[in-house]
Amino acid sequence: MRDLYPSRQNGQFDILERKDPVIHTDRSKDNQAPLSKEQLDSYEKNGFLQIQDLFSEKEVRDLQNAIFELQDASRNSDSNKVVREPESEEIRSIFHVHNDDSYFKNVANDQRIIDIVNYLLGSDVYIHKSRINYKPGFKGKEFDWHSDFETWHVEDGMPRMRAVSVSIALSDNYSFNGPLMLIPGSQNYYVSCAGKTPEHNYKESLRKQTLGVPDQDSLRWLTENGGGISVGTGKAGTVTLFESNTMHGSSGNMTPYPRNNLFMVFNSVENQLVQPYSGGKPRPEYIAVREGIRSRLGA
Amino acid sequence: MRDLYPSRQNGQFDILERKDPVIHTDRSKDNQAPLSKEQLDSYEKNGFLQIQDLFSEKEVRDLQNAIFELQDASRNSDSNKVVREPESEEIRSIFHVHNDDSYFKNVANDQRIIDIVNYLLGSDVYIHKSRINYKPGFKGKEFDWHSDFETWHVEDGMPRMRAVSVSIALSDNYSFNGPLMLIPGSQNYYVSCAGKTPEHNYKESLRKQTLGVPDQDSLRWLTENGGGISVGTGKAGTVTLFESNTMHGSSGNMTPYPRNNLFMVFNSVENQLVQPYSGGKPRPEYIAVREGIRSRLGA
Repeated sequence: MRDLYPSRQNGQFDILERKDPVIHTDRSKDNQAPLSKEQLDSYEKNGFLQIQDLFSEKEVRDLQNAIFELQDASRNSDSNKVVREPESEEIRSIFHVHNDDSYFKNVANDQRIIDIVNYLLGSDVYIHKSRINYKPGFKGKEFDWHSDFETWHVEDGMPRMRAVSVSIALSDNYSFNGPLMLIPGSQNYYVSCAGKTPEHNYKESLRKQTLGVPDQDSLRWLTENGGGISVGTGKAGTVTLFESNTMHGSSGNMTPYPRNNLFMVFNSVENQLVQPYSGGKPRPEYIAVREGIRSRLGA
Repeated sequence: MRDLYPSRQNGQFDILERKDPVIHTDRSKDNQAPLSKEQLDSYEKNGFLQIQDLFSEKEVRDLQNAIFELQDASRNSDSNKVVREPESEEIRSIFHVHNDDSYFKNVANDQRIIDIVNYLLGSDVYIHKSRINYKPGFKGKEFDWHSDFETWHVEDGMPRMRAVSVSIALSDNYSFNGPLMLIPGSQNYYVSCAGKTPEHNYKESLRKQTLGVPDQDSLRWLTENGGGISVGTGKAGTVTLFESNTMHGSSGNMTPYPRNNLFMVFNSVENQLVQPYSGGKPRPEYIAVREGIRSRLGA
C-alpha cells in the first residue's frame, strides 16, 4: 500500500499537506452532533477542543482517587506498561489502563465521550492506546514537540489521520506546571521527519522523545502559518480533545503543583493498523489490540 | 559582624523571618513616591511589581537593537563576562553592561528607574550587577528556584535585604516561553540552604544553578504561605521590579519564541558589600564595583 505520510526514511525534514478530513462526519449533519457548531468549527480550525464540566465534581474526585490507587498498586510492578522517570524510579505513566483495569474500562466506555468521538471520526471506534500520566511537582520532565500520528503511523502502522486523543485533566492545569502546549492549525500539515527508527525504539521513546521531533524550521513554520501556541490550562476535570496530527508538547514542571491526566486515543474501526511504515515489526501490545481487545463502542 | 542570614553552613534547610523592611522609605511619605499607593502596596505585599509603558515604543526598539549589536560584537569574546549555553556556544548572558557599554550605562542611569529605586531602597543606590539575558527559542534552559539575596549574601557579602532587581523585557513574554515565575510573599522569608559553597562556585553557577536552591519542602511551604506562583508575562518593554529576596525561577523554553531581557540590580549605598559570608574571597569584579565603579545616582 502506498505510504501517504512518509517519515523517517533517512530523508530531509519536509512539510506535507494533510490528505484526510479533520472531522469525518459530513458537516451537513452538524445539527445531529453532540457538540455545538461553534465547538465543531473550533476543533476543525484549531485541531483541538476543550470541554469544561463534562464530568461532575464527584466523578472527577473518583477519577483522581482511582489513578493514585492504581499508582500505589503498581509501585513494585516490573510490567513494561509501567514507565518511570528517567532520573528516578517514580512512576511517570501507566499504559493500557482501558483494558487492564475494570474502573478505567468503564471510563473508556463513557457514553458522553464515545458519542463525541464517534461523531468526529465518522464511524465506530476502538481504543488504540490509553495511559495515565503522572507529572509530579518539581521533577516533571518536558515532552518535546511531536505529532502523535507521525509516531503511530511510522511505529504502529496507523494508515490515515482518523484518530482523536482525549485527555482528562486530573489536577488543575496552570500555565506554569507544564501544561499541554498545542499549535493551532498544525493538524493540517504533516511534518515528515529525518532519521530512521531503530528496532525497539518505543522502549526508549516513552522515557525521552527523540525521533519524530520536527526540526526548528518546521516548528517555526507551523506557529507562523497556524495560530502560534495555545496552552491547555483548566481545572481538574477539563477534557481536551485533540486530533491525532495536532503538534503538541509540554514544558518541564519545576513547581510544587503536579500535573496528572488520563489519556485515551480512539481510532476509527475503518483505520485499523497495518504493518508499521518503518518496516519494523508491530509492537506486541498492538497485535493484542488489533486481534483481541478491540472494543466496538457506540453504534 | 553577626550573620543575620546564615546559609550553606553545612546545616539543614530552614526558613527564617526577614529582618529588613521591604520598602525602605517610610510609608508615611507615600504621597512623595514615584509610584502610586496601589503599586507600593502590591510591591510590599508580593515582593514584585510590573510596570507597562515606562519606556516608549521607540526606546524599546532601540534597546532591542542594542542587545543584539552587543551580542554580535561579543561573538568571539573570551571574556568571563560572556556566558554561553551549557550545551552550545550560543551566548546566554553578557554581564556588567552598565559599566562596559556606554549605551547601557545611560539606561542604568535612566532617571525614571533611579527615582523608583531610590524610593524603594530609601537611599542613594549603585549598580551591584547587570546583565543581558538571551533565552533563545527552542534551547533556553531553565533557571531553578532561588533567592538572589541568598547568593549575593553568601557569595558576594551583601549584608542586608536592601536591593532591588529591575528586569526590562526585550521580547514579548508569554506564559509558554520560559517567563519569570515568582512566589508572591516569599520576600518575607529567608530559606537558609544546606550545603557549602566551594571556591570559584560562581563560574559554574552562572551556567547551571545548583547551590542555593531551596529544598522541595521549603518551596511548597512558600507557595502555600504566600500567594502560589505568579508568571511575569507582558509585551516587550514591560519592567518588572523584584525585591532581592523574592523567590523566583523560570522554566525552559522549547517554543520558537525567544525571551530576552536586560537585568540590573540596584543596591543601597548603605548596604555595601563586606567579606562574603561563605568565608571565601570576594569575586574580583565585585572588588571593582566596590572600589571603583560605584556610581552615586539620583539625589
